[in-house]
Amino acid sequence: SSAPTDRSDQLRSFLELCMDRHYVSPGETNSDLFQRGLSCSYGPLGTELRRNLLEQWWHSVTRGRGQVFGISTLSISQEQVGLQVVECELVKQILDQHKSKEELIQEIQLLLQRSPTVRTNLLTGALQQFVPSLELVNRKLPFGLAETGLCFQSSISNSCLFSAEITQTSLVWFCSPRTSSQWLDHWTRQRLKWWKKFALSPSDFSSIEVPKQELEDAASRGVRILYNFPWGSEALETLWSRGNAELLHSLSDVLQCRDGQKSVPHVVSISGNMDRGVMAFLSNSLQQLKREEGRQKLQQRKVLKLHPVLAPVKVALNIGRGPAVELRQVCGGLLQEFLEAKIFTWPGYLETVGLLPRQYDEMGVLFSVVISENTLENGLVQVRSRDTTIRETMHISELRNFLSRYISAAENI
Amino acid sequence: SSAPTDRSDQLRSFLELCMDRHYVSPGETNSDLFQRGLSCSYGPLGTELRRNLLEQWWHSVTRGRGQVFGISTLSISQEQVGLQVVECELVKQILDQHKSKEELIQEIQLLLQRSPTVRTNLLTGALQQFVPSLELVNRKLPFGLAETGLCFQSSISNSCLFSAEITQTSLVWFCSPRTSSQWLDHWTRQRLKWWKKFALSPSDFSSIEVPKQELEDAASRGVRILYNFPWGSEALETLWSRGNAELLHSLSDVLQCRDGQKSVPHVVSISGNMDRGVMAFLSNSLQQLKREEGRQKLQQRKVLKLHPVLAPVKVALNIGRGPAVELRQVCGGLLQEFLEAKIFTWPGYLETVGLLPRQYDEMGVLFSVVISENTLENGLVQVRSRDTTIRETMHISELRNFLSRYISAAENI
Repeated sequence: SSAPTDRSDQLRSFLELCMDRHYVSPGETNSDLFQRGLSCSYGPLGTELRRNLLEQWWHSVTRGRGQVFGISTLSISQEQVGLQVVECELVKQILDQHKSKEELIQEIQLLLQRSPTVRTNLLTGALQQFVPSLELVNRKLPFGLAETGLCFQSSISNSCLFSAEITQTSLVWFCSPRTSSQWLDHWTRQRLKWWKKFALSPSDFSSIEVPKQELEDAASRGVRILYNFPWGSEALETLWSRGNAELLHSLSDVLQCRDGQKSVPHVVSISGNMDRGVMAFLSNSLQQLKREEGRQKLQQRKVLKLHPVLAPVKVALNIGRGPAVELRQVCGGLLQEFLEAKIFTWPGYLETVGLLPRQYDEMGVLFSVVISENTLENGLVQVRSRDTTIRETMHISELRNFLSRYISAAENI
Repeated sequence: SSAPTDRSDQLRSFLELCMDRHYVSPGETNSDLFQRGLSCSYGPLGTELRRNLLEQWWHSVTRGRGQVFGISTLSISQEQVGLQVVECELVKQILDQHKSKEELIQEIQLLLQRSPTVRTNLLTGALQQFVPSLELVNRKLPFGLAETGLCFQSSISNSCLFSAEITQTSLVWFCSPRTSSQWLDHWTRQRLKWWKKFALSPSDFSSIEVPKQELEDAASRGVRILYNFPWGSEALETLWSRGNAELLHSLSDVLQCRDGQKSVPHVVSISGNMDRGVMAFLSNSLQQLKREEGRQKLQQRKVLKLHPVLAPVKVALNIGRGPAVELRQVCGGLLQEFLEAKIFTWPGYLETVGLLPRQYDEMGVLFSVVISENTLENGLVQVRSRDTTIRETMHISELRNFLSRYISAAENI
């Protein structure tokens, strides 16, 4: 393993690349949040990458199956635990009213009682949707409820309390008690396969059984899906076999008069941190290649080899030699054509100074296209691939089909 | 206009339909939130409808244009105004410490100062991203930053304070001062066209200039895009021509040493409430048709004629007469085929009692397909259209292409 200074250099250079290439917004706070696997302020490329990742998760877990239904629950509720949302003005009013200490305490307690809390996970919401969902599946097990959304947590950093947000994914799977352990294994295999599918080096993703002493209260088993970051392993997703205690608790009103215990299913929960997922795929896809460039000394070439489905920018359009006005018109037409076909395109031609191939590689742009006077004469464009660095000549009319086929081929592997 | 009791009957029947058909989760609180244009807990169909709507918005505003970049900013920040997130335990600790009144006040004030706030709009985040985005566009105007996400507001209902969440959309458009009013008109036309595109009766969507006395502080002009609900008009989106005062304020650190005033662009902002958007399209697409059914008395048929692109469920699969095991196998194969082609399918065949055509109409399901012993013999299935109620016979191998073509034709109109 490499020395600590090497690793911290590596980390710094990785974070710089993410900020320079519009994945993460600049600033130290942002970079700190990003590093810790929390939501940060994302630039245009990071925003699209996280969207693509969430879209793939949703399709793989919900839309791609008959027995999983998507739900969306509220992020604030009236339960009195954890992080509460308080109207600042109301507290100031109470403090300003010159009351006795006892009255003061009483009023603040009352305010807290009336104030809502923000959620820390998506499990609670899904358990509450269990009863209304039974009708959908005609009371047949197994079935699942899936959700993606913001969750909050409070944490202490540099001896200062602050709250953080995480973009979580959640699948809550209801099954018969005797099959719950098998379902945990099934979902572990499914989820690990999903993570590896988009990876450049799949062996960095692994699963590990949670040790007995680290099990959550209700859980009988747990599995973590880990990513092996250069600075150590961290959990991307956690699966729990939770029994039915929590579900029974949330059903207590409904079940009061019946002997519900036996007919209440067991719960397998899967919760993921997609902000850390974004970081894992960025880290996983960064290749640092050394090569000699002509008479220059050894150069380092960085390429973000994100999977074609995840890569935010599929193609960048640039202007070569030739009459600028006409070339810009051709680019504008191509841009419109690609965007309508839902191929995310970088309008490089709109900048007076186009980016260099090196910069496109660092952004993870799959293909860059140069339109020049040649294009005006015979319709030929130059297409450069990120992964092979080979420049091909292609007719402009073939471009869209070529790109669509390339992306959908990668999707269906 | 109809009598008040008529209107409230209409509203109640509309809300019941949304709950019965899995758009909105059951419960009075939910129904109340939904009615007021706030986020509520959505069922599987409501979840997909809002996803489809947000997806269309994103494509129309961001992915469909060269000069708009998507961003995602944090929903909690360190500013000390509005709704604050407070760790409940910490307040209780302070109250329990038997301190003097003065110390109590001081400690609570300190806690508030250190506690973060939740955002009430997406504008502030976008203004902060202005400087890092300049590099993307090579300092050329106009350009825009788009975002969708949760925002919070505090409101008082039944003399009880509670906070509510809204799924907002935001486009912040930076342009030269002399063009800002034209851009406001341009975006008003664009946005109104977008809303009308998906409407069954487009005339219910309209735009109106905000009266002078209702203008927000910094704004010189404002336009509201309204939907004419049966119970009155409400704003779906609001456009403001905001000048550059707020941007100057957020840039104060950067501009301190320069004469920045002249080179700071004007801001046109568009913010939308997509929870109310969901309600508008549900309300807009509900048709109540009267028809005579055989010897029965006059029956009311309700159809949710959601636009094919927005409709959550494109096709429902059901089993007719014939050997159940074989028919279920055929259905399972079709389900897999459709889901892989990203056609959202309702697995009606998984329930022992399939839904009636009436119920599919109320869910807004575009087509329902019946697979029967006929299918096993000669591959023919029966396809019923929601909009025409006509049943066609079709070969099972043609089904997927038929559905894909139908949906994409509707998308490109």
